[in-house]
Amino acid sequence: MATFGEIGEFGFIERIEAGALPPAAGVRCGIGDDCAVLAGENSRVRLITSDLMVEGVHFVVEGSDPGGLGHKLLAVNLSDVAAMGGEPREALISLAIPPELDVGYMERVYRGLRGLAARFGVNVVGGDTTRSTGPLVMNLTLTGEMDQDRVCYRSGANPGDLIYVSGTLGDSAAGLKLALGESVGLSNADREILLCRHHRPEPRVALGRALAASGAVTAMLDLSDGVASDLRHICRQSGVSAVIDGTTIPVSTAFRRFRELSDTGARNLALSGGEDYELLFTVAHGGRDDVEALAAGPGISCIGRIVSGDGRIYLENAQGPRTELEARGFEHFSGSQAH
Amino acid sequence: MATFGEIGEFGFIERIEAGALPPAAGVRCGIGDDCAVLAGENSRVRLITSDLMVEGVHFVVEGSDPGGLGHKLLAVNLSDVAAMGGEPREALISLAIPPELDVGYMERVYRGLRGLAARFGVNVVGGDTTRSTGPLVMNLTLTGEMDQDRVCYRSGANPGDLIYVSGTLGDSAAGLKLALGESVGLSNADREILLCRHHRPEPRVALGRALAASGAVTAMLDLSDGVASDLRHICRQSGVSAVIDGTTIPVSTAFRRFRELSDTGARNLALSGGEDYELLFTVAHGGRDDVEALAAGPGISCIGRIVSGDGRIYLENAQGPRTELEARGFEHFSGSQAH
Repeated sequence: MATFGEIGEFGFIERIEAGALPPAAGVRCGIGDDCAVLAGENSRVRLITSDLMVEGVHFVVEGSDPGGLGHKLLAVNLSDVAAMGGEPREALISLAIPPELDVGYMERVYRGLRGLAARFGVNVVGGDTTRSTGPLVMNLTLTGEMDQDRVCYRSGANPGDLIYVSGTLGDSAAGLKLALGESVGLSNADREILLCRHHRPEPRVALGRALAASGAVTAMLDLSDGVASDLRHICRQSGVSAVIDGTTIPVSTAFRRFRELSDTGARNLALSGGEDYELLFTVAHGGRDDVEALAAGPGISCIGRIVSGDGRIYLENAQGPRTELEARGFEHFSGSQAH
Repeated sequence: MATFGEIGEFGFIERIEAGALPPAAGVRCGIGDDCAVLAGENSRVRLITSDLMVEGVHFVVEGSDPGGLGHKLLAVNLSDVAAMGGEPREALISLAIPPELDVGYMERVYRGLRGLAARFGVNVVGGDTTRSTGPLVMNLTLTGEMDQDRVCYRSGANPGDLIYVSGTLGDSAAGLKLALGESVGLSNADREILLCRHHRPEPRVALGRALAASGAVTAMLDLSDGVASDLRHICRQSGVSAVIDGTTIPVSTAFRRFRELSDTGARNLALSGGEDYELLFTVAHGGRDDVEALAAGPGISCIGRIVSGDGRIYLENAQGPRTELEARGFEHFSGSQAH
């Protein structure tokens, strides 16, 4: 006997994968990447992904912005499609709703979701609505499409590749701390920036497509659990290790001020805080100029390099010798953080 | 202010549909049928559907058969694909799991699901797993495929068409009453039959495909809320009414014995009990021989006819004059029945 609290999310996924049926010929990639990849017609593939948000685990109803909740439910799925390099298409939404919830609240959730859907040309084509005996639970399934030769899997990184991230890291994790009541004497403008990055992440769909089209990306995923945890997926699936240069992690001015004013718990948020929803990708050395030429929008930063090895992540700093990063990052089952 | 308990599932769906974006050219059918229908290549369409099951609303963990639960989660989605006439393809499963739940329980859920998946060639290609702060919640999204000219929508019924159902009705609703503790002095064999029909419904995928291929079906859906409620969807979307011949409703021997031994509450279960997961479809008068020639497997029964009208359902009986059927059938928000 073991409970989910004991084995955790990844432990359960490993058990489930172990007993899975052999995939059919049409399944290019099943469990284990940001999206499943299914063979389509005319050298195209179809992408499909699901993300679930549970009240009390991923969000609170009381005092929260319902529009932001709808935005985020779609954004986290768009981020998965972006991480393959794909174009988003259709969404299905399943809702388990407590009977006492105000209908106006859910209408505002939908408005937030539709605002983002309109920007990315996503059609909401169905789903399921039922009663919940407990928390509000929302699942969104998103489909996408792309050329089969351009799909960016997690498994293609090679020793010598450079490691990049888009945008800045840690803003969302700092925003969560602010949302949970941490008060560090930050200006209202900085607070707003960090809270917005937490509540309304901007999925990097255009950048993901451009990176995939460049042909220079060898592996890609989106950052949901922090570099320290997510880069490990690329390393394990590619059979390599990685060295991160701690001095090159891109952070925003607002985050830097938050970090200066916070206690020591904030120090590692840029590397191990969750929900950045930025892209983490590797580039063959010769592709450096190609991808850096693309760096419009959120911008990209080189933060390290792939080395031969067995799935370890090392951190280099000016201050001292190379250290190995622990597999930290948060898991939903651990329950230590609502986010 | 209105709560979900007040406006109900269908009230909410109406509000959501009203504010939806105009569908893109590639969306043949969005919200409002058993599956969304999306344009594919080479005269094919893609189908996609989601169904959500919530502990305490659709099932109980305590004392239940986890394998049956996994079976049913996939079966209800397979039934939606069957109701369009399609071939099932891939599944994504999202789970919100209470941390204290035994992992072995969920592994048995998966085993039940995989048994059915293997029979229907369905690949489980992904999903999401997270912690629940309340009940176990499971969502399954299923894709399918078929020729675009064969899709059986709800909107194609015409006056003069005959109304058919597959299999027998009411077994599942009777099985639910038994599962909830109703004891009517039924034989163990009859109990088993009715409980199995409730816990492990058999999706009518082969029949749905054969009916669609026949070209004789004008409208089709699967019975989840009972004929009295579900036939209304066909009538409203087709702009017609229907007359049911109450003497022709197919019931099993086990159900007939259950009904004889039960109190009056069981009398209407064949027409308004939920979760039959049989197919309800209409056939142009000239197609009668074509569809009756197909009636292998569960068998089909003609139970009435489509007439001109505005979405009403009438019941004819040998005993008296034609009566109008109320829009009864159960909604999950009403909460009066766990099923």
